[in-house]
Amino acid sequence: MGGTTTKIGLFSSEGKLMDKKEIPTRVAMGRKSVFQDIAACIRTLTQDHGAALSDCSVGMGVPGPIDETGYADVMVNLDMYDFYPGKELSELLEGIPVKAANDANVAALGEMWQGGGRGYKSLLFVTLGTGVGGGIILNEKILHGAHGLGGEIGHIWVNPDEPETCNCGGHGCLDQMASATGIVRNAKRFMAKAEKPSALEKFDNLTAKDVFDAAKAGDEVAEKTVDYCMGFLGKNIADVTYVIDPEVVVIGGGLSKAGQYLLDVVYNHYKRYPKLKKCLSDFRLAQLGGDAGMYGAARLALEEK
Amino acid sequence: MGGTTTKIGLFSSEGKLMDKKEIPTRVAMGRKSVFQDIAACIRTLTQDHGAALSDCSVGMGVPGPIDETGYADVMVNLDMYDFYPGKELSELLEGIPVKAANDANVAALGEMWQGGGRGYKSLLFVTLGTGVGGGIILNEKILHGAHGLGGEIGHIWVNPDEPETCNCGGHGCLDQMASATGIVRNAKRFMAKAEKPSALEKFDNLTAKDVFDAAKAGDEVAEKTVDYCMGFLGKNIADVTYVIDPEVVVIGGGLSKAGQYLLDVVYNHYKRYPKLKKCLSDFRLAQLGGDAGMYGAARLALEEK
Repeated sequence: MGGTTTKIGLFSSEGKLMDKKEIPTRVAMGRKSVFQDIAACIRTLTQDHGAALSDCSVGMGVPGPIDETGYADVMVNLDMYDFYPGKELSELLEGIPVKAANDANVAALGEMWQGGGRGYKSLLFVTLGTGVGGGIILNEKILHGAHGLGGEIGHIWVNPDEPETCNCGGHGCLDQMASATGIVRNAKRFMAKAEKPSALEKFDNLTAKDVFDAAKAGDEVAEKTVDYCMGFLGKNIADVTYVIDPEVVVIGGGLSKAGQYLLDVVYNHYKRYPKLKKCLSDFRLAQLGGDAGMYGAARLALEEK
Repeated sequence: MGGTTTKIGLFSSEGKLMDKKEIPTRVAMGRKSVFQDIAACIRTLTQDHGAALSDCSVGMGVPGPIDETGYADVMVNLDMYDFYPGKELSELLEGIPVKAANDANVAALGEMWQGGGRGYKSLLFVTLGTGVGGGIILNEKILHGAHGLGGEIGHIWVNPDEPETCNCGGHGCLDQMASATGIVRNAKRFMAKAEKPSALEKFDNLTAKDVFDAAKAGDEVAEKTVDYCMGFLGKNIADVTYVIDPEVVVIGGGLSKAGQYLLDVVYNHYKRYPKLKKCLSDFRLAQLGGDAGMYGAARLALEEK
């Protein structure tokens, strides 16, 4: 479930994606309508493929923290509060099992199962998009956390020198440094301070992609920006390694389209920490793009069967 | 197993401590002798209580990283390298099950089972002693990590301004700030800069306990030191909460004798992070002291039965 659209996939019990649909998330209509839309789409998908609803189980990824009991306190983007999303959907689907988890967490599970983390059992997944999200898989299971905060690395304070306030109310969150927004903001700062001209000056609406492209082409300001911003991410991943020591780190989200270049910059910062020398995690790019959550939700559903 | 002595406890299968012994760890005699000493002590303990060795299983905590397969790469304090401690001990005990884990990790498990974390299933355990150690329990199991690094929070770099080098080769590790050594070092720095006299000046061999005692009595330099050093710990625990979101944080080790005062200082720093507002973990003092590892090892042995 996203704030704009919801993607719904039908998977075989072997985990093959058989069909998928994307429907608008009609947030303004209220929670009941949104869930009815989803339930109706699930019915259509199963009927189209001759599957009995009673043979199915459902997994869902939602944009907000979910604790281990399936409780959602707040989903700002959906204007939904204080309820159990899995239970709500199950009641509209004749009581079949529905398990909900945080969207970044199900995406992590999807990448482990069928994406960049295939073959690994423990994984840190980092999404670099408008914000920075994270999900952790240990022994092939999502680490939800006692309050649904597991893997929420985007709001760890990494830069005490950041003057702006983060949307969470903090200062210097990883989200402010390593997100697309953070990269653009920092590129503008480096441009303002630069003594040489930069290829970035020609953009009216500078994007993170422009910065990465210019960095790859050797533009000094762009290189500095990427190195500075991704330095915080590399350090943060090192910190997380000291906590959960994952087999692999998978990097996804829009920025991961910068590919191996991005991965190398982050890895070079990450590996600087002496204690990690013999304990380095593998680094991989995500492979499932916007479908990662759907795959992970399916895997979650299979756990319930 | 410690670098000086090894504690060995006999537990009933219900988890009751029936007897315990402490033997010297004769590191200079080499690995084989050390393990033979331990095996002999286990035989004596079981015989003393009329237990058949074949009915027993063994858990052990060792001073070094152990990965999920039970492999130990290096235990500096024991001068032992590249082996499987559990397998080694099992071979001396007619092949009964022996499971080894890192000492801080088994202590964490012990505190969850019978100590400060009783009643909780997920826990961050922090030991504040000569160094800073950590262990993580999720769903009542140790988080070993892919390379045995799980919960090794002591070497996360928390203070870029620290001029001295840590024994790990890093700079500004949590270990350098929140350990007994770190507190004494920082107290001396604050004393040197202080404009007012401090009660700490009278000590020839200043200890962390002296600093805590003086802080509790209202000495300004001591208060500043505790607040400064424990500020790094509180921030670090907040960071870890964003990663694993534990139900409870248990603080042990020699410094935890400062009791509720210490807990309050750390908690006040910890709770400053906005995103945590509704997700605060409980804070507890450890209760098992130096026996925590023995309890956790017993719990580990019970998992094997």
